[in-house]
Amino acid sequence: MRPQIVLFGDSITEQSFGSGGWGAALAHTYSRKADVLVRGYGGYNTRWALFLLHHLFPLGSAKPPVATTIFFGANDAAILGRNSERQHVPVEEYKENTRKIVHHLKECSPTMLVVLITPPPIDEEGRKEYARSVYGEKAMKLPERTNEVTGVYAKQCVELAKELGLPSINLWSKMQETEGWQKKFLSDGLHLTEEGNAMVHQEVVRVFNEAWLSAPDMPYDFPRSSEIDGKNPEKAFLQQCL
Amino acid sequence: MRPQIVLFGDSITEQSFGSGGWGAALAHTYSRKADVLVRGYGGYNTRWALFLLHHLFPLGSAKPPVATTIFFGANDAAILGRNSERQHVPVEEYKENTRKIVHHLKECSPTMLVVLITPPPIDEEGRKEYARSVYGEKAMKLPERTNEVTGVYAKQCVELAKELGLPSINLWSKMQETEGWQKKFLSDGLHLTEEGNAMVHQEVVRVFNEAWLSAPDMPYDFPRSSEIDGKNPEKAFLQQCL
Repeated sequence: MRPQIVLFGDSITEQSFGSGGWGAALAHTYSRKADVLVRGYGGYNTRWALFLLHHLFPLGSAKPPVATTIFFGANDAAILGRNSERQHVPVEEYKENTRKIVHHLKECSPTMLVVLITPPPIDEEGRKEYARSVYGEKAMKLPERTNEVTGVYAKQCVELAKELGLPSINLWSKMQETEGWQKKFLSDGLHLTEEGNAMVHQEVVRVFNEAWLSAPDMPYDFPRSSEIDGKNPEKAFLQQCL
Repeated sequence: MRPQIVLFGDSITEQSFGSGGWGAALAHTYSRKADVLVRGYGGYNTRWALFLLHHLFPLGSAKPPVATTIFFGANDAAILGRNSERQHVPVEEYKENTRKIVHHLKECSPTMLVVLITPPPIDEEGRKEYARSVYGEKAMKLPERTNEVTGVYAKQCVELAKELGLPSINLWSKMQETEGWQKKFLSDGLHLTEEGNAMVHQEVVRVFNEAWLSAPDMPYDFPRSSEIDGKNPEKAFLQQCL
């Protein structure tokens, strides 16, 4: 009955219902108006995401999502020859895979609001500390992701959104506007702190509002309790439910 | 595709995706295994909840929830002749309404795991402070809910669960086992603090685990990234998705 908003992405989406997470905050913003479903897959790049498309978004669904965020790239941008090279996807392929995801979603529902989110920036020191905590002395001296390379992916993400006429959120740029972004927004050089989550939440709400999916403008699914007459409750429900 | 867990209740359920909320925490616990949908209606009592039943849980649904929590009573227990009397429902009717909700859910799906949650205890001082903050000098000297009366509703909730052979969570008792529960678990004498939310989350997970809905025992919806061979990703997806 309620419209659905789907969050499709990697670990930054999967973790978005953790404490202070942007997904949970979004569900709260759309409380009693839309359901927010997490389809976050830790470690996934866009190449692997393509395998899920028809399962998560079947063509011919009677009730496709009204909106979907696509939030990959952080793993695609892992650098060849370093710790996470298994996840690497060349930037041209990242762009084409993302295009395929968008096309599929639009085939599911031409009216679906699709929002592209770039990967966040990388705090290379944070990544190296993280690697040392996992691999100890064996950790590579060079970080498995760099801010510069991730920026290339972010740029292609924003360009693709422009080509396709979609809204996008350039997290990579936006976060770096704030001094101390490295520790303020990122917990391990890549994943989000509560403040990082708050920024993603705020940006997604802003973009949804600028499109047509503004929570304050959406109807409640059922009467608010203040509209219910204690002596004659049927009245409110007859008007809105039957 | 994923099983659904529905949280049906009043404002304590509606707010469960706020910061530190028990609903969001539950969604995180069942990450990649089940979807958690909030059906919380602030201010609602069980009498009003009945109007929603067939809308929220249509009979003959191809995919009813695998589990539902029923968490009302805090508003039913509002006292006649005081500020919130509009929400009052006599305790016998509260019990019968809750029984109707359970019967309907079991008619939707005989295998559905239905868990009854009692209202939390009431910190009457907290309620009076809250009333003063809203109504100022006009606030009634007597709280609109009392801990004793709410306890009567909690007792009936637990008794009903026993009659029906359902698991229940006696929040009213459980919270009062901890010294300082009034401010530790309740923010305004009725709604939950982060610690109160944490307790509800912990209790729901415990009861789900003791039944058959244990997150660690449930399969992931798709391969974990560690199972995917970077050079031959098809393999993992062929096994699990097609």
